[in-house]
Amino acid sequence: MHGSFDHTIHKGQGHYGWDNSFPPVLTVAPGATVEFQCRDASAGQFSRETTAAEVPKIDLARVNPVTGPISVDGAAPGDALKVTVLSFKPSGWGWTANIPGFGLLADQFPDPAIHHWTYDTGGKAPAMFGPGGRVPLRPMAGTIGVAPAAPGHHSIVPPRRVGGNMDVRDIAEGAVLYLPVEVAGALFSVGDMHAAQGDGEVCGTAIETAMDIALKVELTKGAGLAFPRYTTPGPVSRHFDAKGYEVTTGIGPDLMQGAKDAVKGMVDLLSRRHGMKPVEAYMLCSVCADLRISSIVDMPNWVVSLYFPRIVLD
Amino acid sequence: MHGSFDHTIHKGQGHYGWDNSFPPVLTVAPGATVEFQCRDASAGQFSRETTAAEVPKIDLARVNPVTGPISVDGAAPGDALKVTVLSFKPSGWGWTANIPGFGLLADQFPDPAIHHWTYDTGGKAPAMFGPGGRVPLRPMAGTIGVAPAAPGHHSIVPPRRVGGNMDVRDIAEGAVLYLPVEVAGALFSVGDMHAAQGDGEVCGTAIETAMDIALKVELTKGAGLAFPRYTTPGPVSRHFDAKGYEVTTGIGPDLMQGAKDAVKGMVDLLSRRHGMKPVEAYMLCSVCADLRISSIVDMPNWVVSLYFPRIVLD
Repeated sequence: MHGSFDHTIHKGQGHYGWDNSFPPVLTVAPGATVEFQCRDASAGQFSRETTAAEVPKIDLARVNPVTGPISVDGAAPGDALKVTVLSFKPSGWGWTANIPGFGLLADQFPDPAIHHWTYDTGGKAPAMFGPGGRVPLRPMAGTIGVAPAAPGHHSIVPPRRVGGNMDVRDIAEGAVLYLPVEVAGALFSVGDMHAAQGDGEVCGTAIETAMDIALKVELTKGAGLAFPRYTTPGPVSRHFDAKGYEVTTGIGPDLMQGAKDAVKGMVDLLSRRHGMKPVEAYMLCSVCADLRISSIVDMPNWVVSLYFPRIVLD
Repeated sequence: MHGSFDHTIHKGQGHYGWDNSFPPVLTVAPGATVEFQCRDASAGQFSRETTAAEVPKIDLARVNPVTGPISVDGAAPGDALKVTVLSFKPSGWGWTANIPGFGLLADQFPDPAIHHWTYDTGGKAPAMFGPGGRVPLRPMAGTIGVAPAAPGHHSIVPPRRVGGNMDVRDIAEGAVLYLPVEVAGALFSVGDMHAAQGDGEVCGTAIETAMDIALKVELTKGAGLAFPRYTTPGPVSRHFDAKGYEVTTGIGPDLMQGAKDAVKGMVDLLSRRHGMKPVEAYMLCSVCADLRISSIVDMPNWVVSLYFPRIVLD
C-alpha cells in the first residue's frame, strides 16, 4: 500500500554519479518518511519502441539517474543511516537489455538485445517472457546509498562501502538497510528500480523500470559499520521457489570464473531445452536466477551455483 | 522414509582420496537403488568426548572418507551419471570444528574449537547451539562424485568437474544430481554427511555426522556436461526463512575478499548482539548462513552477502 508521506522528491530532482558537493534537494529530520519518484536506469532514453539496434546508442553519461540527495539532520561520519523500505509504486512498463561490453558474459554476447515487459502494477501477476515464461515480480531498489567522503565526481556504476549501485535483490518492501555515513547529513539518494531481479543480475540489467519508492530514514549514531548491512522481514525467495530449481555449477579456483561457468551452463541448458535464443536465456537468468557460493573452503577449488526457478518455465 | 534398497555398501567399504585404479566394491545396473553407510568426516577420529585441544591432532590423511566406489554398467566418458537422493538415515550425533589453517577466516581464527551436537534422527527438530540457538536440520551429502580420468591419487579436499567434495547444501532429499563421467563405469562414491549446512560452509565444517544415504543411479548417455548440475524438487530455504534474515555484505573488486568481509561482519554482529564468542558465531554461520553473490556486473566492484536466518536466534 503506497500511501502518503512526509515529503516527496520529484524525478527532476536528481543527479548522475556521486559527488558530496551536490547540494541537498531537501533536509529532513530523522524519522521522516520520504517518497522518491525514480526514473528508469536509462533516464528515459529507452521507450516501449526501442529496438536492439538502438541499445548501443545509449549515452552512458546519462544512465542510472538517482533521485536526491536528501540531507538528514545530525548524520555524521561513523553513523549509520537506517533506511526502511515502506512501499513501491510501479509504472507497469520495463525493459531488460544486453548492452555490449556490459554483463557477466560480455565476451560471449557481443550483440545488443532488448526485451520489453508490461507488468502488473499491483506487483502480483508474473510478467511474461517469450512463449511460456512467467517471471514473478518483487520490486526493489538497485541503487541506494549515501555520498562518499572522497571529493570529486564518482561513477554511478560501482557499488561502494557507502552503498550505491549494489543491485541487492532483497532491498525490497520491509527491508531495513544500514548504510555507513561518510559526510555530514549523509546525502542519501536512490534510483535504478527493478520490478524483478535475480542475485547477481548476470546480464547487467534487470526488469528496469520507472517506479516510486517510499522510505523512512533514521539514524544509528556511532554504528561504525565497515559495509552496508540489512535485514529482511521474512522469506526472500518464496515468489520463486515453489517448484524448486534447475541448478548449474562452475567449479575451480576462481569465484568469478566459477560464476561465469555456472551462468554459461544455464544458458546452454535453457536455450537447448526451451528453444530460446541464448541471449534470451541470459537475460531471463538476469531477472530471476540466483548466484550462490555453494562452497568456498575446500582448497583450492570453490563451487558457484546458479539457481533458476522452475516455476518460470514450468 | 528410509526403506530397503537393491544394495547396501557398508562403511568399511570406502577409500580416502580419489584414484580411478581403486577397484569397485560393487557393479550395478542403471536404475539400481543403493544404500551407502557413511562415516563422519573425521572417520571416527572425533567422538562425543573430543575437546578443542584435540582437534589439531586429527590425521589429515584420514579425513573425508567416502563409501564406494561402485561401477555402473555401461557408463562411459561423456555420459552423465544421474543420481537421485532418495533418503537419509541420520545417526543423531555430530560435530562442528574450527580446524586451524582451514576455513574462510583461517587467519582470524587460529585456535581450535569444537561444538558437539545431539540432534533428532527424524531430522525435524532443530539442533541446539549454545544458549538460545536452534539450527533447523536438512541432511545432505557433502562429498559425492565419480573418479577423475587423470591417473594417480588425488586429494579428497577440492571439488572438481567430476564432483567430489562439493559441499552443496541442496544435495538433499529429492535432489537429482548429474555428474560428468570420465572413466568407464563412472566409479561413484559418497560421504561427508551433514545434518545441516549453510551455502559456503564458511568455517570449513558443517554439522558433520555419520549418516546413511540411499541413492538411485541412472545414466544419461552422451550428456556432455562441462560441470555437475542438479535439480531440487522444491524450495531449498524454507527450513530457514520464516523470520527473514540478517545480512552483512562485502563490497569490492574481489569476490573472495567480499565473502570474507561479509562473514567477518556477521561474526562481529552476532558475537556483539548475542554475547557469543566470535569463533562460536563463525561456526554457527557455517551450519546455517548462506553466501550469495548479490551483484557481479557493476564494474569494478561486486557485492557478496551473507544471509543469517533470524529463526536460529529469535
